[in-house]
Amino acid sequence: MYTINRERFLRLMDEQAQFGATDAGGVSRPALSPEDMQIRNWFQQQITANGLKYAIDGAGNQSAILESSNLNAKTLLLGSHFDSVPNGGRFDGALGLIAAFEVLLSIKDAGIALPFHLEVINLTDEEGTLMGITGSRAIVGLLSREELLNPRGERERLTEGMSRAGLSDESMLSAKRDPALLLGYLEVHIEQGTRLEEAKFNIGVVTSIVGIRSYWMTFKGEAAHAGTKPMDKRRDAFWGASAFALWAKDRIMADFHPGVVNFGRIHLEPGAFNIVPAEVKLAVEFRHGEITQLDAMETAILEQAHLAAQEYGLQLEAETGDSLLPAPMADSFVTAIETASEKLGLSHTRLLSFAGHDAQSFAHVTNSAMFFVPSVNGISHNPLEYTKPDDCVNAANVMLQAVLEIAGITT
Amino acid sequence: MYTINRERFLRLMDEQAQFGATDAGGVSRPALSPEDMQIRNWFQQQITANGLKYAIDGAGNQSAILESSNLNAKTLLLGSHFDSVPNGGRFDGALGLIAAFEVLLSIKDAGIALPFHLEVINLTDEEGTLMGITGSRAIVGLLSREELLNPRGERERLTEGMSRAGLSDESMLSAKRDPALLLGYLEVHIEQGTRLEEAKFNIGVVTSIVGIRSYWMTFKGEAAHAGTKPMDKRRDAFWGASAFALWAKDRIMADFHPGVVNFGRIHLEPGAFNIVPAEVKLAVEFRHGEITQLDAMETAILEQAHLAAQEYGLQLEAETGDSLLPAPMADSFVTAIETASEKLGLSHTRLLSFAGHDAQSFAHVTNSAMFFVPSVNGISHNPLEYTKPDDCVNAANVMLQAVLEIAGITT
Repeated sequence: MYTINRERFLRLMDEQAQFGATDAGGVSRPALSPEDMQIRNWFQQQITANGLKYAIDGAGNQSAILESSNLNAKTLLLGSHFDSVPNGGRFDGALGLIAAFEVLLSIKDAGIALPFHLEVINLTDEEGTLMGITGSRAIVGLLSREELLNPRGERERLTEGMSRAGLSDESMLSAKRDPALLLGYLEVHIEQGTRLEEAKFNIGVVTSIVGIRSYWMTFKGEAAHAGTKPMDKRRDAFWGASAFALWAKDRIMADFHPGVVNFGRIHLEPGAFNIVPAEVKLAVEFRHGEITQLDAMETAILEQAHLAAQEYGLQLEAETGDSLLPAPMADSFVTAIETASEKLGLSHTRLLSFAGHDAQSFAHVTNSAMFFVPSVNGISHNPLEYTKPDDCVNAANVMLQAVLEIAGITT
Repeated sequence: MYTINRERFLRLMDEQAQFGATDAGGVSRPALSPEDMQIRNWFQQQITANGLKYAIDGAGNQSAILESSNLNAKTLLLGSHFDSVPNGGRFDGALGLIAAFEVLLSIKDAGIALPFHLEVINLTDEEGTLMGITGSRAIVGLLSREELLNPRGERERLTEGMSRAGLSDESMLSAKRDPALLLGYLEVHIEQGTRLEEAKFNIGVVTSIVGIRSYWMTFKGEAAHAGTKPMDKRRDAFWGASAFALWAKDRIMADFHPGVVNFGRIHLEPGAFNIVPAEVKLAVEFRHGEITQLDAMETAILEQAHLAAQEYGLQLEAETGDSLLPAPMADSFVTAIETASEKLGLSHTRLLSFAGHDAQSFAHVTNSAMFFVPSVNGISHNPLEYTKPDDCVNAANVMLQAVLEIAGITT
């Protein structure tokens, strides 16, 4: 059975962690920052030094390409990202990319002939310092000029980063590829949670990246003197918002496991110690992997909001915010990952990804799949983020076997 | 039986409402604003035109004085305020002052000889545009230089107002009077609530002005990814703060009627749709008329906060804020008001004042008492504030009879 080169792989993992290294033991490589540019240069050198074809597109996505002898073949992308959150860890993104690169080197070393082009791709700005899963959205055509002009990370930072990398609005929009030329996308990532660790699984096979819906729920009561207005005469918007939050989270936990709901922002009017709150605006965000469950959660959450408003004599305004469709992973790729795990004698389980990843962009246009390896204590976006060397090696070996499965090569 | 001059009294009520009149039918006379200065000039003219002694102290408190023939007599103050909140109503403060002035004129007209000096006093800045119950606190020595330098309404506005009225920090502090020269303080005010209206009482005799205590309650949990962190693993500070607010208000309503509690401000960290709240800071304010009840409320509220923190795995920090002692009214004056009401055939009840009034300043150093007349629908600090003419006349007549009671004059 083919396996990756453990020594080379772990050395590359150590090397990548030098770029943007922090005193705390993590890395800080925000997208297109000087530190990100350094690791990009290093990655380009690694690609060419290993005799692979190097390419970069208008969105700054860097590729190492192992071409099939069949030049009309489609391309299987193996991807992840070198960019990190500020003061992040050395595994988030980098593990997936180094594993993919090691898979490509191992296949080249073994002289395996693939029926598809194999392309390892460093996708720009997965973390959202500038816009979020940017490189993958550029490839599938989900990046708009409007967003480039008004990015969540501020236009000035985006233009600075683009100029550092020789990119422009026009080049970003030109990175769109013809989906007909893609066979699919495969990614391995650290779990950023404790489900695998707690249940002692080696591999978590993602069946769907959750969809996200959000609301601003506004409860409107009546401002009143916090002394003279008797308690039983108040229409206190904060009472209603509090009851809603508790009822909604209880309902989601009881009926929609493993779905999640969060109340992450709040605004209260008029906002004085001695005035009964007239208006509370509460941010609600909820996630699930299946669209039918997401629909049912939405109905349940709105129901609880109406009940809370009614209970406390309030008006309710429910305003929808950003949303994201669930991204189901490709069945054939999910099976390939499971088969690969079994061949390697690794335990595996199916799970949802509750965080966003580039795989969700690709799910819109091609076969897309991803799997997780355990994160110690689930710590992530933190210098203490850690995945054991054996789990890192498992990541690369499962990816190698999955690629061979997809290629129909049984060893 | 002596009664006030209804026609003159209602005419004066109409006249005062011209100063700072708003299109909506209310008045806007923030303390020491140009509009407040206009009504002050008018009041001085009314005093002198009626042959009364006029005085003004260093805090800008204006007085109409009817001296007793016994020049060593103490002084009974009848007070209230002409200042209003911005865009307020025409009864809050003004009714009490016009009623007191009419009482003084009626006593003078009737040639009644009092065993004390009778002084009607327009107290500066009751509403707190600048500092709050300012004139009365200056008189009883509860105004500090620190507060003058850092007033809640901003130093610049205070100095502007003081200069408009010819006052200074030094003059404000010089307004303190020797309590030994005071017999007491009496005030009538609109209820600013619906207790009298609903129970159909003419007069509400205040037994105590409530004490106020406040806290910042900080619940500390753990920030987490609002997707990847399973619901049952979260330490969500907002869940704890919500449960605390609901439990505390239920407890206060069940066990501490007519005490009140309010949660008027909130701050949530880090404050993003997709991050589980790590920290919630909640403003808590509670009021009761008896210090023993206030103590028990404080214990109950802290207990609920600790229970909520425990239930949701949070740390609790309880930081005390501003507080105000309850101000019990003088028994003898309370009885005088009740006797006066009965002589006039008016129904009366005892109640707490849940709002602050100048009477609470005077309660620290002398006999102090106040009573309420009904406010239609309890509306206050609003141009729609309204008290019926008969209730206004009752206010003045009860005050007249109460003064005669205190003087020991039975008619």
